[in-house]
Amino acid sequence: MAVGLSDPVNLFPVKGIELASMACGIKSNGRDDLVLIKVNKGATCAATFTKNAFCAAPVTVAKKHLAITNPRALLINSGNANAGTGKLGIRDAEQSCEWLADVLECSANEILPFSTGVIGEPMPMAVLNSGIKAISQLAVEDNWLTAARGIMTTDTIAKAISKQITIKDETITITGIAKGSGMICPNMATMLAFIGTDAKVEKGHLQQCLDKAVARSFNSITVDSDTSTNDACILLASGVSNAGLIEADSEAAEIFAQAVEDICLHLAHAIVRDGEGATKFISINVVSAATLAEARDVAYTIAHSPLVKTALFASDPNWGRILAAVGRAGIENLVLEDVSIYLDDVCIVSGGARDAAYTEEAGQRIMNQSEITIKVILCRGDVSTTIWTTDLSHEYVTINSNYRS
Amino acid sequence: MAVGLSDPVNLFPVKGIELASMACGIKSNGRDDLVLIKVNKGATCAATFTKNAFCAAPVTVAKKHLAITNPRALLINSGNANAGTGKLGIRDAEQSCEWLADVLECSANEILPFSTGVIGEPMPMAVLNSGIKAISQLAVEDNWLTAARGIMTTDTIAKAISKQITIKDETITITGIAKGSGMICPNMATMLAFIGTDAKVEKGHLQQCLDKAVARSFNSITVDSDTSTNDACILLASGVSNAGLIEADSEAAEIFAQAVEDICLHLAHAIVRDGEGATKFISINVVSAATLAEARDVAYTIAHSPLVKTALFASDPNWGRILAAVGRAGIENLVLEDVSIYLDDVCIVSGGARDAAYTEEAGQRIMNQSEITIKVILCRGDVSTTIWTTDLSHEYVTINSNYRS
Repeated sequence: MAVGLSDPVNLFPVKGIELASMACGIKSNGRDDLVLIKVNKGATCAATFTKNAFCAAPVTVAKKHLAITNPRALLINSGNANAGTGKLGIRDAEQSCEWLADVLECSANEILPFSTGVIGEPMPMAVLNSGIKAISQLAVEDNWLTAARGIMTTDTIAKAISKQITIKDETITITGIAKGSGMICPNMATMLAFIGTDAKVEKGHLQQCLDKAVARSFNSITVDSDTSTNDACILLASGVSNAGLIEADSEAAEIFAQAVEDICLHLAHAIVRDGEGATKFISINVVSAATLAEARDVAYTIAHSPLVKTALFASDPNWGRILAAVGRAGIENLVLEDVSIYLDDVCIVSGGARDAAYTEEAGQRIMNQSEITIKVILCRGDVSTTIWTTDLSHEYVTINSNYRS
Repeated sequence: MAVGLSDPVNLFPVKGIELASMACGIKSNGRDDLVLIKVNKGATCAATFTKNAFCAAPVTVAKKHLAITNPRALLINSGNANAGTGKLGIRDAEQSCEWLADVLECSANEILPFSTGVIGEPMPMAVLNSGIKAISQLAVEDNWLTAARGIMTTDTIAKAISKQITIKDETITITGIAKGSGMICPNMATMLAFIGTDAKVEKGHLQQCLDKAVARSFNSITVDSDTSTNDACILLASGVSNAGLIEADSEAAEIFAQAVEDICLHLAHAIVRDGEGATKFISINVVSAATLAEARDVAYTIAHSPLVKTALFASDPNWGRILAAVGRAGIENLVLEDVSIYLDDVCIVSGGARDAAYTEEAGQRIMNQSEITIKVILCRGDVSTTIWTTDLSHEYVTINSNYRS
C-alpha cells in the first residue's frame, strides 16, 4: 500500500554501531519485537522526544538517563507502548535497562529504552527478560535492515536509508531507520527513528544538527493529527571515523548537517508514504506567508481536513474544500482575493474565485496522480514552508477499527 | 443512519411566519432546493454567521442587509453554496434578493439570502429566477417540516423542533429547523438553522438570547472539524403574540431564553446524530478545568482525533487513544496523575494509569452502546463544558469520496 516506497537497499554499516533483532514474544503474531542497538564507548548522542504531556514511561526514563551520561545501547520493543501504565510502567522500563546493563556490563543509566505498540497494557516482563539475555549475542554491524523490520508495528514496509559523505578525504557513513504509520503528527519530536554515524561530533553540536533536521522533516509530517505518546528520534555518533572531530561552523559541519537532514527527510517521507491506508503522497507548500506559524497553520489545516483528505482519496478535484480549509485556518485579516491555490502546476483559485483558465479536466489530470503538491500563495510576506501528508481512505478506517484485535 | 433520530413531529406553526419549499432545478436529483421564509413587517431578527475567512457570497450579502434593516424574507437554496465564486457570486446573491423583492414588493435589503451545497460552482441564475417567481404563492404558516426537508443536502433526515411557553397567560411558540451533516465544526456561528417565534423581542435582546444559545449548542458540536463557509443561524421574532414585549432581565426573558437554548440544543444534537456516516452519538464532558478555553481544547482534541473516532466506530474500548488525545491537547503543566477518564459510569483511567477496578468487559459494555459519554476530570479548576460529536466510519469516507458525483 505504501506510496512510491520499496524495500530499502544499499544500507551501509556504521563503524562502532552493532544491531540485533529478534522475536521475544511481545507480539502475538511471532514477528520480531525486540531490537538492540549497541554503540562503542565515547560515542555521543542527540535526541528529540514527543511533547505529548502523557509521554510514555520509556520516554521519561530515556530522557533521565540521557541527562546523566552518553548511552552504550538502545533497547527497543515493538508491540507494547508502555504508555498510560503509571508507576509500574516506569519501574518496568528501569528494570529492562538494569537487565541489559548486567549483560553488557555497564550502568543502567547507559541504556535508553524505547517502546511502541498498544497503549495501556502492562509490559510482559518475563518474555522481555529472556529476550534481553539472548539478544546481545546477535548484534553485528551489518544489521540495519533487520533492525528496521524489528521496530515495525502497523508499518507495511521497512524504512531505512544510508548516505556517505567525504570529509578530509575520509568517508563518513550515516544510516538511519524509522517506524511509524499511524498516530503520526510529531510535535517538536518524531516517531521512532534511530540514526547512526561514525562521525566524531561533540554532543551539543550533534543536538543542533538533529534539532534543525527534525524541524524540517519529522516535525513537518502528519498522517492523522494524532501526536503519539512515544515519539523519539535518536542520532548516535560513534566517532570512530578517521576524519577527526567535525567542528561547529566548519564546512565539514555544513556537509554533515545537510546529510543528517537528508536522512531525516527520507525517513519522514517514508513514514508518510506508508501512512495507514495511504493511497497518495501529498506535499502542501504554503508560500509568501507573514510568519512561519501562519504558514504551518494553513498547511496543517489543509492536511488535517477529513474533507480534503477524502477528496484526495477519491481523486476528486473538489478544490472548494481546500479553499474552505485555508479560510478556517484562523489567519487574521486574510484577504481571499490575494490568495492563489495550485494543484501541481494548475492554478485552481485566484482573485477569490475559480481561476478563469481552470478546467475540470486539468484538475482531474493532477488528482489522478499518486503524488500531488498543493501550493497556497498567501501574498502576505516572504516565509514559506512545506508539510507532507496522506489521503484518508477506507483502509485507514479498517486498520484503526481492527488494530487491537 | 441517523443515531436516535426520527422524523420531526408536532411542529407548531408560528403566527406571522410563512414558509414554502420547491424544486426549482438546482439539485440534479429533482429534490426540493429552494425555500422561502416570509415574516410580517415589524418582526425583529437575530443572526450568527460563520467565522470562516472565506465566507460565502450570500453570507456577505445577508450580513450587509441585516445591518441596514429588519428582514421581510429569507431565501435559501440548497445544492449550490455560492462560495469561492468571487464578485460574480456577490452579484448573483444580490440579484436573487432583487428578484424576490420585486415579487414581495419590498426593498432588496429586506431579503436575506442563504446557500448550501457544492463550493465553487456559479449559481444557475435562470432556474433560480423562475423558482423565485413561483415560490411566494406557496408560502403558508403550517409548513415548517416541508421547509426543513427543502434545505437538506447530505442530511438523511429532516431536523426540526417546536416548543411552546406561557408568558402572561399567553402561549408563545418557538419552532426551528436546521440542516447539516458534513463540514460541521461551527466557529462562533453554526450550520444553516432557522428559528421562528411569535414573541415580541427587541432586536438587541433577541441577539443576546441567540448568542448565548448558540455558544452552548451549535458552537459545541463537531462532526469532522471542517468549519463551513456558509454557516448561519437566524432567529426571527414576528412579535404578533398577545404576550406583549419580553423585556430584558425579566422573568419572561429567562423563560424565553431557556426555550431558545432548548431549541438550538435539539437542532445541534440532530445535526450530530445525522453526521455523515455517524453510527454513534458521543458526548464529551470535560470537568474541573482551569478555563473554558482549556476545557474546550481537551474536548475538541478528543472529538477530532481520527484514532478515537475509529475506535468508537469499532466499539473498541481502546482508551489509550483517549489518553493520548488529552495529552496532546496543548494544556500547560497538565499532571497525568491528576486526570481521570470515564466511559459513562466506568472509570478507565485514574492516577496516571488504567484504573485498578477497570475491566475490559465493563469498557466493552459501554462501547457497544450507540450513545456514549466520555468524561475527563482534569482537577485544575471549576470550569466544565460539553461538546458533542460522532464516530468516524467507512460510510463517512464513502459519502465524502462521492459527494460531487
